[in-house]
Amino acid sequence: MRHYAAPLLALLEQLEKLPGVGPKTAQRLAFHVLKAPRDDAENLARAIREVREKIRPCEKCGNYADAPLCDICTDPRRDAFYLCVVSDPRDLLAVENSGEFRGVYHVLGGLLSPLDGIGPDELRLQTLLKRVSEDKVREAVLALSPTVEGEMTASYLAGLLRPREIKVTQLARGLPFGGDLDYADQATIAGALRGRREL
Amino acid sequence: MRHYAAPLLALLEQLEKLPGVGPKTAQRLAFHVLKAPRDDAENLARAIREVREKIRPCEKCGNYADAPLCDICTDPRRDAFYLCVVSDPRDLLAVENSGEFRGVYHVLGGLLSPLDGIGPDELRLQTLLKRVSEDKVREAVLALSPTVEGEMTASYLAGLLRPREIKVTQLARGLPFGGDLDYADQATIAGALRGRREL
Repeated sequence: MRHYAAPLLALLEQLEKLPGVGPKTAQRLAFHVLKAPRDDAENLARAIREVREKIRPCEKCGNYADAPLCDICTDPRRDAFYLCVVSDPRDLLAVENSGEFRGVYHVLGGLLSPLDGIGPDELRLQTLLKRVSEDKVREAVLALSPTVEGEMTASYLAGLLRPREIKVTQLARGLPFGGDLDYADQATIAGALRGRREL
Repeated sequence: MRHYAAPLLALLEQLEKLPGVGPKTAQRLAFHVLKAPRDDAENLARAIREVREKIRPCEKCGNYADAPLCDICTDPRRDAFYLCVVSDPRDLLAVENSGEFRGVYHVLGGLLSPLDGIGPDELRLQTLLKRVSEDKVREAVLALSPTVEGEMTASYLAGLLRPREIKVTQLARGLPFGGDLDYADQATIAGALRGRREL
Protein backbone atom coordinates (compact mmCIF):
# COMPACT_ATOMS: atom_id res chain seq x y z
CA MET A 1 0.00 0.00 0.00
CA ARG A 2 2.93 2.36 0.42
CA HIS A 3 2.95 3.56 -3.16
CA TYR A 4 -0.34 5.35 -3.05
CA ALA A 5 0.21 9.09 -2.70
CA ALA A 6 -1.06 10.28 0.70
CA PRO A 7 -4.28 12.01 -0.47
CA LEU A 8 -5.19 8.92 -2.50
CA LEU A 9 -4.55 6.66 0.48
CA ALA A 10 -6.71 8.93 2.65
CA LEU A 11 -9.56 8.68 0.15
CA LEU A 12 -9.23 4.87 -0.05
CA GLU A 13 -9.44 4.64 3.74
CA GLN A 14 -12.63 6.70 3.81
CA LEU A 15 -14.22 4.80 0.92
CA GLU A 16 -13.53 1.44 2.56
CA LYS A 17 -15.69 2.50 5.51
CA LEU A 18 -18.74 2.48 3.19
CA PRO A 19 -20.99 -0.59 3.28
CA GLY A 20 -20.12 -3.20 0.65
CA VAL A 21 -16.96 -1.38 -0.43
CA GLY A 22 -13.77 -3.46 -0.22
CA PRO A 23 -10.23 -2.50 -1.29
CA LYS A 24 -10.81 -3.24 -4.98
CA THR A 25 -14.08 -1.28 -5.19
CA ALA A 26 -12.55 1.57 -3.20
CA GLN A 27 -9.71 1.71 -5.72
CA ARG A 28 -12.13 1.82 -8.68
CA LEU A 29 -14.13 4.60 -7.03
CA ALA A 30 -11.01 6.57 -6.13
CA PHE A 31 -9.63 6.33 -9.66
CA HIS A 32 -12.99 7.43 -10.98
CA VAL A 33 -12.89 10.49 -8.72
CA LEU A 34 -9.38 11.25 -9.99
CA LYS A 35 -10.34 10.90 -13.65
CA ALA A 36 -13.83 12.37 -13.64
CA PRO A 37 -14.36 16.09 -14.36
CA ARG A 38 -13.25 18.17 -11.39
CA ASP A 39 -16.79 19.49 -10.98
CA ASP A 40 -18.09 15.96 -10.42
CA ALA A 41 -15.70 15.40 -7.53
CA GLU A 42 -16.58 18.79 -6.07
CA ASN A 43 -20.32 18.13 -6.44
CA LEU A 44 -19.99 14.73 -4.76
CA ALA A 45 -18.02 16.18 -1.84
CA ARG A 46 -20.55 18.99 -1.45
CA ALA A 47 -23.53 16.61 -1.64
CA ILE A 48 -22.05 14.43 1.13
CA ARG A 49 -21.46 17.46 3.32
CA GLU A 50 -24.87 19.03 2.66
CA VAL A 51 -26.82 15.86 3.28
CA ARG A 52 -25.39 15.80 6.79
CA GLU A 53 -25.89 19.52 7.33
CA LYS A 54 -29.41 19.86 5.96
CA ILE A 55 -31.19 16.58 6.56
CA ARG A 56 -32.98 16.23 9.91
CA PRO A 57 -35.95 14.19 11.15
CA CYS A 58 -39.41 15.45 10.24
CA GLU A 59 -40.90 16.80 13.49
CA LYS A 60 -44.13 14.95 12.86
CA CYS A 61 -43.29 11.54 11.38
CA GLY A 62 -39.51 11.17 11.77
CA ASN A 63 -38.84 10.82 8.02
CA TYR A 64 -35.73 12.46 6.57
CA ALA A 65 -36.55 16.10 5.81
CA ASP A 66 -34.81 19.35 4.88
CA ALA A 67 -37.51 21.44 6.59
CA PRO A 68 -39.35 21.10 9.93
CA LEU A 69 -41.92 18.84 8.20
CA CYS A 70 -41.21 16.36 5.42
CA ASP A 71 -42.73 16.39 1.90
CA ILE A 72 -45.21 13.67 2.79
CA CYS A 73 -46.54 15.31 5.96
CA THR A 74 -47.08 18.61 4.14
CA ASP A 75 -48.73 17.02 1.08
CA PRO A 76 -52.50 17.76 1.26
CA ARG A 77 -53.23 14.85 -1.08
CA ARG A 78 -52.05 12.25 1.44
CA ASP A 79 -54.80 10.51 3.39
CA ALA A 80 -53.98 10.96 7.09
CA PHE A 81 -56.61 8.37 8.07
CA TYR A 82 -54.09 5.72 7.08
CA LEU A 83 -50.89 5.69 9.13
CA CYS A 84 -48.08 3.37 8.08
CA VAL A 85 -45.69 2.56 10.94
CA VAL A 86 -42.09 1.79 9.93
CA SER A 87 -38.84 1.17 11.76
CA ASP A 88 -36.71 3.77 9.95
CA PRO A 89 -36.71 6.15 6.97
CA ARG A 90 -35.17 3.49 4.68
CA ASP A 91 -38.19 1.27 5.20
CA LEU A 92 -40.46 4.29 4.69
CA LEU A 93 -38.89 4.83 1.27
CA ALA A 94 -39.16 1.12 0.44
CA VAL A 95 -42.92 1.25 1.11
CA GLU A 96 -43.27 4.63 -0.61
CA ASN A 97 -41.49 3.40 -3.73
CA SER A 98 -43.98 0.53 -4.07
CA GLY A 99 -46.46 3.23 -5.15
CA GLU A 100 -49.24 1.39 -3.29
CA PHE A 101 -49.69 3.57 -0.22
CA ARG A 102 -51.25 7.04 -0.21
CA GLY A 103 -51.49 7.58 3.55
CA VAL A 104 -48.91 9.04 5.91
CA TYR A 105 -46.09 7.48 7.93
CA HIS A 106 -44.70 7.21 11.41
CA VAL A 107 -41.04 6.29 11.94
CA LEU A 108 -40.41 4.39 15.19
CA GLY A 109 -36.65 4.84 15.09
CA GLY A 110 -35.98 1.12 15.57
CA LEU A 111 -37.58 -2.15 16.66
CA LEU A 112 -37.98 -3.63 20.14
CA SER A 113 -34.91 -5.70 20.95
CA PRO A 114 -34.49 -6.52 24.64
CA LEU A 115 -31.11 -8.16 24.01
CA ASP A 116 -29.80 -4.90 22.56
CA GLY A 117 -31.40 -2.86 25.32
CA ILE A 118 -34.02 -1.36 23.02
CA GLY A 119 -37.32 -1.19 24.91
CA PRO A 120 -40.50 0.84 24.35
CA ASP A 121 -38.86 3.98 25.77
CA GLU A 122 -36.27 3.96 22.97
CA LEU A 123 -38.95 4.12 20.24
CA ARG A 124 -41.12 7.06 19.20
CA LEU A 125 -44.28 5.60 20.78
CA GLN A 126 -45.67 8.61 22.67
CA THR A 127 -45.78 10.71 19.49
CA LEU A 128 -47.41 7.76 17.72
CA LEU A 129 -50.18 7.53 20.32
CA LYS A 130 -50.60 11.31 20.22
CA ARG A 131 -51.00 11.27 16.43
CA VAL A 132 -53.46 8.40 16.54
CA SER A 133 -55.67 10.39 18.91
CA GLU A 134 -55.31 13.86 17.41
CA ASP A 135 -55.27 13.01 13.71
CA LYS A 136 -58.26 10.64 13.83
CA VAL A 137 -56.30 7.75 12.35
CA ARG A 138 -58.60 4.93 11.19
CA GLU A 139 -56.03 2.29 10.31
CA ALA A 140 -52.46 1.74 11.45
CA VAL A 141 -50.60 -0.31 8.85
CA LEU A 142 -47.59 -1.94 10.50
CA ALA A 143 -44.82 -2.29 7.90
CA LEU A 144 -42.09 -3.88 9.99
CA SER A 145 -39.42 -6.31 8.81
CA PRO A 146 -40.51 -9.96 9.16
CA THR A 147 -37.92 -10.76 11.81
CA VAL A 148 -38.17 -11.70 15.48
CA GLU A 149 -37.79 -8.04 16.46
CA GLY A 150 -40.33 -6.94 13.86
CA GLU A 151 -42.91 -9.50 15.03
CA MET A 152 -42.35 -8.58 18.68
CA THR A 153 -42.74 -4.88 17.91
CA ALA A 154 -45.89 -5.54 15.85
CA SER A 155 -47.48 -7.48 18.75
CA TYR A 156 -46.57 -4.75 21.19
CA LEU A 157 -47.99 -2.04 18.94
CA ALA A 158 -51.18 -4.04 18.33
CA GLY A 159 -51.67 -4.24 22.11
CA LEU A 160 -51.14 -0.49 22.45
CA LEU A 161 -53.33 0.54 19.53
CA ARG A 162 -56.31 -1.84 19.68
CA PRO A 163 -57.87 -0.08 22.73
CA ARG A 164 -57.86 3.13 20.66
CA GLU A 165 -60.59 1.71 18.44
CA ILE A 166 -58.58 1.82 15.24
CA LYS A 167 -57.94 -1.00 12.81
CA VAL A 168 -54.43 -2.42 13.13
CA THR A 169 -53.09 -4.30 10.09
CA GLN A 170 -49.71 -5.54 9.05
CA LEU A 171 -48.12 -6.28 5.67
CA ALA A 172 -49.08 -9.68 4.27
CA ARG A 173 -46.54 -12.45 4.63
CA GLY A 174 -45.26 -12.28 1.09
CA LEU A 175 -41.95 -11.36 2.65
CA PRO A 176 -39.60 -14.24 3.49
CA PHE A 177 -39.03 -14.61 7.22
CA GLY A 178 -35.59 -13.43 8.29
CA GLY A 179 -35.33 -11.06 5.32
CA ASP A 180 -34.78 -7.34 5.48
CA LEU A 181 -37.72 -5.22 4.32
CA ASP A 182 -35.40 -2.79 2.63
CA TYR A 183 -34.16 -5.56 0.28
CA ALA A 184 -37.61 -6.55 -1.00
CA ASP A 185 -38.51 -5.53 -4.56
CA GLN A 186 -41.34 -3.08 -5.22
CA ALA A 187 -43.76 -5.72 -6.53
CA THR A 188 -43.37 -7.83 -3.37
CA ILE A 189 -43.99 -4.82 -1.16
CA ALA A 190 -46.97 -3.74 -3.27
CA GLY A 191 -48.48 -7.24 -3.05
CA ALA A 192 -47.89 -7.40 0.69
CA LEU A 193 -49.61 -4.03 1.10
CA ARG A 194 -52.67 -5.16 -0.89
CA GLY A 195 -52.89 -8.39 1.15
CA ARG A 196 -52.40 -6.78 4.56
CA ARG A 197 -54.42 -8.52 7.29
CA GLU A 198 -55.91 -7.37 10.55
CA LEU A 199 -54.06 -8.30 13.74
CA MET B 1 -38.35 9.70 -6.50
CA ARG B 2 -40.14 12.85 -5.35
CA HIS B 3 -40.19 11.96 -1.70
CA TYR B 4 -36.47 12.19 -1.17
CA ALA B 5 -35.60 15.46 0.55
CA ALA B 6 -33.62 17.67 -1.87
CA PRO B 7 -30.14 17.23 -0.29
CA LEU B 8 -30.63 13.45 -0.25
CA LEU B 9 -31.72 13.47 -3.89
CA ALA B 10 -28.67 15.56 -4.78
CA LEU B 11 -26.39 13.04 -3.08
CA LEU B 12 -28.10 10.10 -4.82
CA GLU B 13 -27.59 11.79 -8.19
CA GLN B 14 -23.88 12.28 -7.51
CA LEU B 15 -23.41 8.74 -6.19
CA GLU B 16 -25.08 7.22 -9.24
CA LYS B 17 -22.39 8.79 -11.43
CA LEU B 18 -19.84 6.47 -9.79
CA PRO B 19 -18.85 3.30 -11.68
CA GLY B 20 -20.88 0.24 -10.71
CA VAL B 21 -23.26 2.25 -8.55
CA GLY B 22 -26.94 1.91 -9.47
CA PRO B 23 -29.98 3.38 -7.69
CA LYS B 24 -30.11 0.68 -5.00
CA THR B 25 -26.40 0.92 -4.13
CA ALA B 26 -26.56 4.72 -4.20
CA GLN B 27 -29.41 4.56 -1.69
CA ARG B 28 -27.47 2.25 0.63
CA LEU B 29 -24.42 4.51 0.47
CA ALA B 30 -26.49 7.65 1.05
CA PHE B 31 -28.25 6.15 4.08
CA HIS B 32 -24.87 5.12 5.43
CA VAL B 33 -23.62 8.69 5.09
CA LEU B 34 -26.73 9.89 6.91
CA LYS B 35 -26.37 7.40 9.75
CA ALA B 36 -22.58 7.27 10.14
CA PRO B 37 -20.83 9.59 12.61
CA ARG B 38 -20.79 13.14 11.27
CA ASP B 39 -16.97 13.09 11.22
CA ASP B 40 -16.98 10.17 8.80
CA ALA B 41 -19.11 12.08 6.30
CA GLU B 42 -16.91 15.15 6.72
CA ASN B 43 -13.73 13.10 6.28
CA LEU B 44 -15.08 11.45 3.15
CA ALA B 45 -16.08 14.79 1.63
CA ARG B 46 -12.66 16.25 2.47
CA ALA B 47 -10.79 13.23 1.08
CA ILE B 48 -12.67 13.49 -2.22
CA ARG B 49 -11.88 17.20 -2.49
CA GLU B 50 -8.24 16.83 -1.49
CA VAL B 51 -7.51 13.99 -3.84
CA ARG B 52 -8.50 16.26 -6.72
CA GLU B 53 -6.63 19.25 -5.31
CA LYS B 54 -3.38 17.55 -4.36
CA ILE B 55 -2.87 14.65 -6.74
CA ARG B 56 -1.02 15.48 -9.98
CA PRO B 57 1.07 13.46 -12.44
CA CYS B 58 4.68 12.71 -11.43
CA GLU B 59 6.84 14.92 -13.68
CA LYS B 60 9.07 11.99 -14.50
CA CYS B 61 6.91 8.89 -14.89
CA GLY B 62 3.32 10.17 -14.94
CA ASN B 63 2.22 8.20 -11.85
CA TYR B 64 -0.19 9.83 -9.39
CA ALA B 65 1.85 11.97 -6.98
CA ASP B 66 1.35 14.62 -4.32
CA ALA B 67 4.78 16.15 -5.02
CA PRO B 68 6.66 16.97 -8.26
CA LEU B 69 8.04 13.41 -8.26
CA CYS B 70 6.22 10.28 -7.08
CA ASP B 71 7.32 7.94 -4.28
CA ILE B 72 8.70 5.39 -6.72
CA CYS B 73 10.81 7.83 -8.76
CA THR B 74 12.37 9.25 -5.57
CA ASP B 75 13.02 5.82 -4.00
CA PRO B 76 16.80 5.14 -4.25
CA ARG B 77 16.21 1.39 -3.84
CA ARG B 78 14.39 1.12 -7.17
CA ASP B 79 16.47 -0.19 -10.07
CA ALA B 80 16.18 2.37 -12.87
CA PHE B 81 17.75 -0.07 -15.36
CA TYR B 82 14.34 -1.74 -15.55
CA LEU B 83 11.56 0.44 -16.91
CA CYS B 84 8.03 -0.87 -16.87
CA VAL B 85 5.76 0.85 -19.40
CA VAL B 86 2.06 1.03 -18.51
CA SER B 87 -0.99 2.68 -19.99
CA ASP B 88 -2.16 4.51 -16.85
CA PRO B 89 -1.56 4.80 -13.08
CA ARG B 90 -4.16 2.10 -12.32
CA ASP B 91 -2.15 -0.45 -14.28
CA LEU B 92 1.02 0.82 -12.58
CA LEU B 93 -0.53 0.01 -9.21
CA ALA B 94 -1.73 -3.39 -10.43
CA VAL B 95 1.87 -4.29 -11.40
CA GLU B 96 3.28 -2.70 -8.25
CA ASN B 97 0.89 -4.64 -6.02
CA SER B 98 2.11 -7.93 -7.51
CA GLY B 99 5.31 -7.28 -5.52
CA GLU B 100 7.37 -8.76 -8.38
CA PHE B 101 8.86 -5.62 -9.93
CA ARG B 102 11.58 -3.50 -8.33
CA GLY B 103 12.34 -1.20 -11.28
CA VAL B 104 10.70 2.09 -12.23
CA TYR B 105 7.68 2.95 -14.38
CA HIS B 106 6.61 5.05 -17.31
CA VAL B 107 2.94 5.94 -17.77
CA LEU B 108 1.94 6.38 -21.42
CA GLY B 109 -1.37 8.02 -20.66
CA GLY B 110 -3.33 5.65 -22.90
CA LEU B 111 -2.99 3.10 -25.69
CA LEU B 112 -2.86 3.61 -29.46
CA SER B 113 -6.40 3.55 -30.81
CA PRO B 114 -6.76 4.97 -34.31
CA LEU B 115 -10.55 4.59 -34.22
CA ASP B 116 -10.69 6.84 -31.15
CA GLY B 117 -8.20 9.29 -32.64
CA ILE B 118 -5.43 8.31 -30.24
CA GLY B 119 -2.15 8.24 -32.17
CA PRO B 120 1.50 8.38 -31.05
CA ASP B 121 1.28 12.13 -30.43
CA GLU B 122 -1.37 11.58 -27.75
CA LEU B 123 0.93 9.32 -25.69
CA ARG B 124 3.93 10.28 -23.56
CA LEU B 125 6.44 8.83 -26.03
CA GLN B 126 9.00 11.64 -26.27
CA THR B 127 9.60 11.57 -22.52
CA LEU B 128 9.86 7.77 -22.73
CA LEU B 129 12.58 7.95 -25.39
CA LYS B 130 14.37 10.68 -23.43
CA ARG B 131 14.36 8.56 -20.27
CA VAL B 132 15.60 5.48 -22.16
CA SER B 133 18.58 7.48 -23.43
CA GLU B 134 19.39 9.51 -20.33
CA ASP B 135 18.74 6.95 -17.62
CA LYS B 136 20.63 4.10 -19.30
CA VAL B 137 17.60 1.79 -19.28
CA ARG B 138 18.58 -1.83 -20.04
CA GLU B 139 15.17 -3.39 -20.31
CA ALA B 140 11.77 -1.96 -21.11
CA VAL B 141 9.04 -4.22 -19.70
CA LEU B 142 5.81 -3.56 -21.59
CA ALA B 143 2.90 -4.17 -19.21
CA LEU B 144 -0.03 -3.35 -21.46
CA SER B 145 -3.50 -4.87 -21.39
CA PRO B 146 -3.82 -7.93 -23.68
CA THR B 147 -6.28 -6.21 -26.01
CA VAL B 148 -6.09 -5.12 -29.65
CA GLU B 149 -4.99 -1.62 -28.56
CA GLY B 150 -2.45 -3.05 -26.11
CA GLU B 151 -0.92 -5.36 -28.71
CA MET B 152 -0.79 -2.54 -31.27
CA THR B 153 0.89 -0.22 -28.79
CA ALA B 154 3.37 -2.94 -27.78
CA SER B 155 4.38 -3.52 -31.41
CA TYR B 156 4.76 0.20 -32.00
CA LEU B 157 6.89 0.62 -28.86
CA ALA B 158 9.05 -2.40 -29.78
CA GLY B 159 9.74 -0.77 -33.16
CA LEU B 160 10.68 2.51 -31.45
CA LEU B 161 12.83 1.00 -28.72
CA ARG B 162 14.71 -1.83 -30.44
CA PRO B 163 17.07 0.55 -32.34
CA ARG B 164 18.08 1.97 -28.91
CA GLU B 165 19.84 -1.27 -28.09
CA ILE B 166 17.78 -2.14 -25.08
CA LYS B 167 15.94 -5.34 -24.34
CA VAL B 168 12.19 -5.01 -24.90
CA THR B 169 9.99 -7.56 -23.12
CA GLN B 170 6.33 -7.88 -22.46
CA LEU B 171 4.27 -9.61 -19.80
CA ALA B 172 3.75 -13.34 -20.49
CA ARG B 173 0.41 -14.36 -21.90
CA GLY B 174 -1.03 -15.59 -18.66
CA LEU B 175 -3.62 -12.87 -19.06
CA PRO B 176 -6.78 -13.84 -20.92
CA PHE B 177 -7.13 -12.00 -24.21
CA GLY B 178 -9.75 -9.27 -24.09
CA GLY B 179 -9.34 -8.88 -20.33
CA ASP B 180 -8.44 -5.73 -18.51
CA LEU B 181 -5.04 -5.74 -16.80
CA ASP B 182 -6.46 -3.89 -13.83
CA TYR B 183 -8.83 -6.82 -13.11
CA ALA B 184 -6.11 -9.49 -12.97
CA ASP B 185 -5.22 -10.88 -9.55
CA GLN B 186 -1.76 -10.34 -8.10
CA ALA B 187 -0.61 -13.94 -8.64
CA THR B 188 -1.48 -13.79 -12.35
CA ILE B 189 0.41 -10.53 -12.75
CA ALA B 190 3.39 -11.87 -10.79
CA GLY B 191 3.51 -15.02 -12.96
CA ALA B 192 3.21 -12.97 -16.13
CA LEU B 193 6.10 -10.75 -14.96
CA ARG B 194 8.34 -13.79 -14.26
CA GLY B 195 7.50 -15.31 -17.66
CA ARG B 196 7.95 -12.09 -19.65
CA ARG B 197 9.40 -12.74 -23.13
CA GLU B 198 11.49 -10.69 -25.49
CA LEU B 199 9.71 -9.10 -28.45
